[in-house]
Amino acid sequence: MTKYEQLAQQIREQIQNRVWRAGDKLPSLRESGKRAGLSLMTVVQSYQLLESQGWIVARPQSGYYVAARPQALPQARRGEDLLLSEQVDINAFIFDVLQASKDPAIVPFGSAFPDATLFMQPKLARALSSVARKFTPHSSLANLPPGNDALRRHIAQRYALSGMQVGPDEIVITAGAMESLSLSLQAVTQQGDYVAIESPAFYGALQTLERLRLKAVAIATHPQYGIDLDSLQQALEQYPIKACWLMTHFQNPLGASLPEANKKRLVTILRERQVSLIEDDVYGELYFSAERPLPAKALDSGGQILHCSSFSKSLAPGFRVGWVAAGRYAPQIQRLQLMSTVSTSVPMQMAIADYLLHGGYDTHLRRLRRVLAQRQSVMRQAIANHFQPTVKVSQPDGGYFLWLELAATQSSMELYHHALAKGISIAPGRMFTTGNHFNHCFRLNASFEWNDRLEEAIKTLAKLIRALPQ
Amino acid sequence: MTKYEQLAQQIREQIQNRVWRAGDKLPSLRESGKRAGLSLMTVVQSYQLLESQGWIVARPQSGYYVAARPQALPQARRGEDLLLSEQVDINAFIFDVLQASKDPAIVPFGSAFPDATLFMQPKLARALSSVARKFTPHSSLANLPPGNDALRRHIAQRYALSGMQVGPDEIVITAGAMESLSLSLQAVTQQGDYVAIESPAFYGALQTLERLRLKAVAIATHPQYGIDLDSLQQALEQYPIKACWLMTHFQNPLGASLPEANKKRLVTILRERQVSLIEDDVYGELYFSAERPLPAKALDSGGQILHCSSFSKSLAPGFRVGWVAAGRYAPQIQRLQLMSTVSTSVPMQMAIADYLLHGGYDTHLRRLRRVLAQRQSVMRQAIANHFQPTVKVSQPDGGYFLWLELAATQSSMELYHHALAKGISIAPGRMFTTGNHFNHCFRLNASFEWNDRLEEAIKTLAKLIRALPQ
Repeated sequence: MTKYEQLAQQIREQIQNRVWRAGDKLPSLRESGKRAGLSLMTVVQSYQLLESQGWIVARPQSGYYVAARPQALPQARRGEDLLLSEQVDINAFIFDVLQASKDPAIVPFGSAFPDATLFMQPKLARALSSVARKFTPHSSLANLPPGNDALRRHIAQRYALSGMQVGPDEIVITAGAMESLSLSLQAVTQQGDYVAIESPAFYGALQTLERLRLKAVAIATHPQYGIDLDSLQQALEQYPIKACWLMTHFQNPLGASLPEANKKRLVTILRERQVSLIEDDVYGELYFSAERPLPAKALDSGGQILHCSSFSKSLAPGFRVGWVAAGRYAPQIQRLQLMSTVSTSVPMQMAIADYLLHGGYDTHLRRLRRVLAQRQSVMRQAIANHFQPTVKVSQPDGGYFLWLELAATQSSMELYHHALAKGISIAPGRMFTTGNHFNHCFRLNASFEWNDRLEEAIKTLAKLIRALPQ
Repeated sequence: MTKYEQLAQQIREQIQNRVWRAGDKLPSLRESGKRAGLSLMTVVQSYQLLESQGWIVARPQSGYYVAARPQALPQARRGEDLLLSEQVDINAFIFDVLQASKDPAIVPFGSAFPDATLFMQPKLARALSSVARKFTPHSSLANLPPGNDALRRHIAQRYALSGMQVGPDEIVITAGAMESLSLSLQAVTQQGDYVAIESPAFYGALQTLERLRLKAVAIATHPQYGIDLDSLQQALEQYPIKACWLMTHFQNPLGASLPEANKKRLVTILRERQVSLIEDDVYGELYFSAERPLPAKALDSGGQILHCSSFSKSLAPGFRVGWVAAGRYAPQIQRLQLMSTVSTSVPMQMAIADYLLHGGYDTHLRRLRRVLAQRQSVMRQAIANHFQPTVKVSQPDGGYFLWLELAATQSSMELYHHALAKGISIAPGRMFTTGNHFNHCFRLNASFEWNDRLEEAIKTLAKLIRALPQ
């Protein structure tokens, strides 16, 4: 850890231990520097890091203050969430929720897509037009599954840089993470098999289970620390589970991330029982901490972990280019892809490969992470200012989702309908489960640049929540 | 019909009625013109049409001769092909056959892809680079299912020009015809349902049935006239069939096309029984006749026909852009797509839409059809020159496949292995069925520009066939 990260961590702990409370003014930069024996620049960096993480806020001509924050984080529902769904069945209203986010007249808090303006990159456009020149008659055949060679090498290199041994040959390029997930499930399961998933879970996974006629075993998942491993172990003893599907980082919808120790234990538990892990890591690059958290795939020894990701959340939404590091399942995944979507769009594969070579992806990512962290803290601030304190709000270390909890008896579906009538979309808890545990929860998209319209929308939501029957 | 088409048809009938036999010299252009009272230019046009269709060949300084052709066309297997597969299961070697076609060292007669050099178009490249300029942050949302508005309008306009009433709202853009097919089957069937398919059928359809756990009822299909409607009716009485999947034009692998009368009867039969028709028309634009044959969709009254097609065979292989005109199933198809591949690559949708506006698609298609017709006739000529007369060869009116039949006791799998050892790929009959009716058949790709290497490959195949045990 650098000096400024160390200082930031100290201050963070002081805030957590209530040395400093919400609203307290922090020591001036100069003062802190003197005390800690650090350069002014170092202190500035650490304060900026804390601000980007939403712990403190700067007030012009005044200094840094501890950010007000909702009193409580959402609670996990241990045990009670171990839910078996013989047949997964997601309500059609998910579709309406997604359609609503297409309408510019509606405030898209319910949207699953990151703010598109975050991805305006001349260099990506240049990569696209370069393909127009480079595309040859033979590109089509050359880019059939497993996909573009250069692209697979670039991805393997990025794995290597984050300390993972993944060869280009075990990587298959897909038309996005959803296809990676679907192909992975098909590779490791047969219809009727049991699959362990998070509760709440990304509705796309629930839908895929439904399409493939798989049985879902929903595992209690902590809003901060992710899937509960005791519940998972219990489930593994109770059901002949073939595969486990989860998001290790900035999980959708909770924003939860598995601590290092939990990842190790997860991999061990699953290896013991020969259960495949399908690790959906689409948000993995959107971390607010100093370093990229290491995927569970890094701990894979038996080629039992299929690591799915894409460029849709971090670089090029709409290009539909993803991949799966499929271990020993790579050949099977290729076959399945060739027989379902044949191949990933060839010009898109070439464009991303070209961009990764020339585009300065890491510079873009650093900016993206900083902006997302700031936008999350601004939105949490607005929520803290307007929502009643009983509303619980998550504080993810990455990604762009916030998970909110109303009083146990309040209905987020009711809130959803009232809000939509006022031109605001939210994503109700029911989208993310086959049960009823999250009827009082909802997900907000925190990726948008803040403005009066959004501030007003938060105020409106606050009013609607107060008006909800307890 | 124009005058030159009428003359061409007369001469074709004379050849069919053996007025002129293989090798006969036709009357000179001047002579025919005088006799028929037509201008020299008209006669030239009709002779060229006949040549492009493989009926006659020009010999320099000598004139036009009736083309030598294998004595017989492949025969249909009426009745005996009504085959039920409780579970469709395609051999993994299909994958090897496809992979082999990626290897430039191998003569790709077994390939399913058209010769890539047919699609070198500066205007398509220009459309691609124009997207780099037009792509905005909001393109991604705007192009979510059902897909790009302009593109859907262009497609609807092309339907209109070929005499079909299909609104943009019933069109959903997909990542290629395979996705159209898969989404369509999911929309109209449940697992365990019965689906009527052709025998032989496109292996992609067999694979999709397998993935969706559907039961296949294979219907006898005539090499020239397509699915046998008596067998279909028999099947409809015997099984609770939910959907019928077939190719109305230039069917893969046979090259067969349904005559107009058969299309009408097909639609009537299915409507009576409320059975959905999934019409795969990916080769529909590749006709050699004067006019585009009308899809069965044109006869749809109840919105019961899902018309699937793509640009992969006619304009842009590798772009992965297709569509389905889904009638009343359009909303359901959108939902399914959003939950499987989310959306079709946005820049690709925009590029195709831009090309359709500026690219001169019809000029490209006219050239493509002419070239494919010529290449087919050249390949049939080479086969006629080298293969023993007992080998039967189809003569499709479009597309780029030839279907060949050996003696009933000969094995095309054996031929496949011998040929591959000599660096030549073919597509054995077993790829296209769940039964054993086509073990003596194979498919050749006739889309390649002819050269000595291909001529040699045909000679080699001829030798290998002679050497096959009867």
